[in-house]
Amino acid sequence: MKLLGGAVAAVDHGGSLGRARALFPHAPLPFVDLSTGINPHSYPLFELPATTFWRLPEGARNHELKAIAASTYGAPSAAHVAAAPGTQILLPRVASLVKPGKALVLGPTYAEHARASAIAGHAVAEVSDIDALAEADLAILVNPNNPDGRVIERSRLLDLAARLRAKGGLLVVDEAFMDVGPVGQSLAGYAGEGGIVVLRSFGKFFGLAGIRLGFALADPLTVERLETQLGPWAVAGPALEYGIRALSDTAWQADMRRRLAADTERLDALFNRFGAPVASGTSLFRYLSLADAKSLFSALGEHGVLVRHFAERPRVLRVGLPGTETEWERLENALVAWTSRREDASKETAR
Amino acid sequence: MKLLGGAVAAVDHGGSLGRARALFPHAPLPFVDLSTGINPHSYPLFELPATTFWRLPEGARNHELKAIAASTYGAPSAAHVAAAPGTQILLPRVASLVKPGKALVLGPTYAEHARASAIAGHAVAEVSDIDALAEADLAILVNPNNPDGRVIERSRLLDLAARLRAKGGLLVVDEAFMDVGPVGQSLAGYAGEGGIVVLRSFGKFFGLAGIRLGFALADPLTVERLETQLGPWAVAGPALEYGIRALSDTAWQADMRRRLAADTERLDALFNRFGAPVASGTSLFRYLSLADAKSLFSALGEHGVLVRHFAERPRVLRVGLPGTETEWERLENALVAWTSRREDASKETAR
Repeated sequence: MKLLGGAVAAVDHGGSLGRARALFPHAPLPFVDLSTGINPHSYPLFELPATTFWRLPEGARNHELKAIAASTYGAPSAAHVAAAPGTQILLPRVASLVKPGKALVLGPTYAEHARASAIAGHAVAEVSDIDALAEADLAILVNPNNPDGRVIERSRLLDLAARLRAKGGLLVVDEAFMDVGPVGQSLAGYAGEGGIVVLRSFGKFFGLAGIRLGFALADPLTVERLETQLGPWAVAGPALEYGIRALSDTAWQADMRRRLAADTERLDALFNRFGAPVASGTSLFRYLSLADAKSLFSALGEHGVLVRHFAERPRVLRVGLPGTETEWERLENALVAWTSRREDASKETAR
Repeated sequence: MKLLGGAVAAVDHGGSLGRARALFPHAPLPFVDLSTGINPHSYPLFELPATTFWRLPEGARNHELKAIAASTYGAPSAAHVAAAPGTQILLPRVASLVKPGKALVLGPTYAEHARASAIAGHAVAEVSDIDALAEADLAILVNPNNPDGRVIERSRLLDLAARLRAKGGLLVVDEAFMDVGPVGQSLAGYAGEGGIVVLRSFGKFFGLAGIRLGFALADPLTVERLETQLGPWAVAGPALEYGIRALSDTAWQADMRRRLAADTERLDALFNRFGAPVASGTSLFRYLSLADAKSLFSALGEHGVLVRHFAERPRVLRVGLPGTETEWERLENALVAWTSRREDASKETAR
């Protein structure tokens, strides 16, 4: 168990071009940003009615969004869904559902969970074994996990939830990448049982991270507690409209799942070809574990291809999917450059 | 002092067309919605870059917004500004800056303040005298006030803030309508002194309530505490872009202030003509106090003109500004209908 001290401090994230420019000031622009797990093929943009910008978001429209989200994610009903301006802003509120106690996060994972738990006043520790989570007042895991794509089976999660519920604890399952994950392991359908909060992110799979939309699925009383904290009009007009249209569009979703799966195969083959085998991941990001991860990160970055590295784990990388053929080419060229640099270095050593 | 029990329950608001349709099912559509204080002449809509929707909001862009907000509102610096997806979602977070104690709200005013204080665990009461606020751990007032436009002078506020600060208390001044209010009474420039949080709303004056953008101005440490709660990416991409452009456009702001002042005069003259004198207000809403407020509310509503009434204060109304000439005409016609109904009723009584 790793105790996380000072966890309230801001954590590093992918997706910042400002940070990329500071790291790689001589890289050719624009950056190919593979540092996030956001789908590069966004749901098609459409013209929003002007009233979406002008008027306060309508309560009835928010309810419609919740009903569609329940149906698409497989939650029992709209009353089991809280809609928020992004999952991120929900984290401290969800962590505050349990009075300050012991929060355990199944790690390594998305760092904001530990931070949110600390903000909510919990003593936070990271554990590497799911069974250890049963000791928590607040147990948090990401399924499939970010950054390595590890999947925990639903039966184990339900067992854990039951044990936590029995003593007034809470299980939080962040399903931010479950849109492409093994849906059979989702807890969305069990959100009504109490002691479970499932988080779903809209922006990643639909490629619309800028509009800020996320959901908590839980029993109706817990949903009400969260909504009380968010107040009326929490979800912006544009997010309501995109959420309603995209979450209803199950045909687009099915096509996109196939497309992302194919892109993932292509990406794995590419990295394999350059001797950087992909270990795991989801169809929205791949996880690489290799000795010279640091040199790969730098070589790609210098060629304007940004991937995600982790300060505390220098031997792993997370790589998102390129969007356009130009981006695929630039990634390939950067890998070529990395390979020749490696070859030069090994010749140098051999001499 | 009025103790506010059960204040956590949801409160009624203006601006819901769903509610309007339920109240006035036979009204001609579309409704002329004068039930809010939102400017009907919005900042001009412009085409947003697609990346605004696709990518996570960029930290540097958020900082730019904060710097412009500081300059426009008159706060000392960007470090004195927290940007949020609407002021509303900030209220419980601001109320939680003080540990649970006694919250006093200068009333009658915007009901969400009492609710947010109760959510944060405070014992909440409404007081009608500003001097009584000095007894609070958390003192809240709206300046200029909603719904009656009452203005408290800056010198009195600074005096109150000093008294609260001396005992570790906090003064929250909601300046949601200060864009058109007497700027000389704003506390924005004093946000760095500690013990003061000033709230500013973007959506009302700029007529863009749907994008969800609001600010808290405070000392940098308090700003950091609020931002920790909000997490990264709290403000959506579209809100960042509109915020930066509109808050920078001081020429538009000056023109709009003049236009709204003129519209306000016109609205007052119209109500006066029909024997419903305007008592007070701001250039974004007017406040009417009259014995037959209830009949006026109903007559306007039946003609599809929606104004704001208050369940607990049946003799007052708040009326926003019509936007188009058609809306002005429909308001005038509805007032004509109300007048003839009153005349018929008084003839009936005389008979």
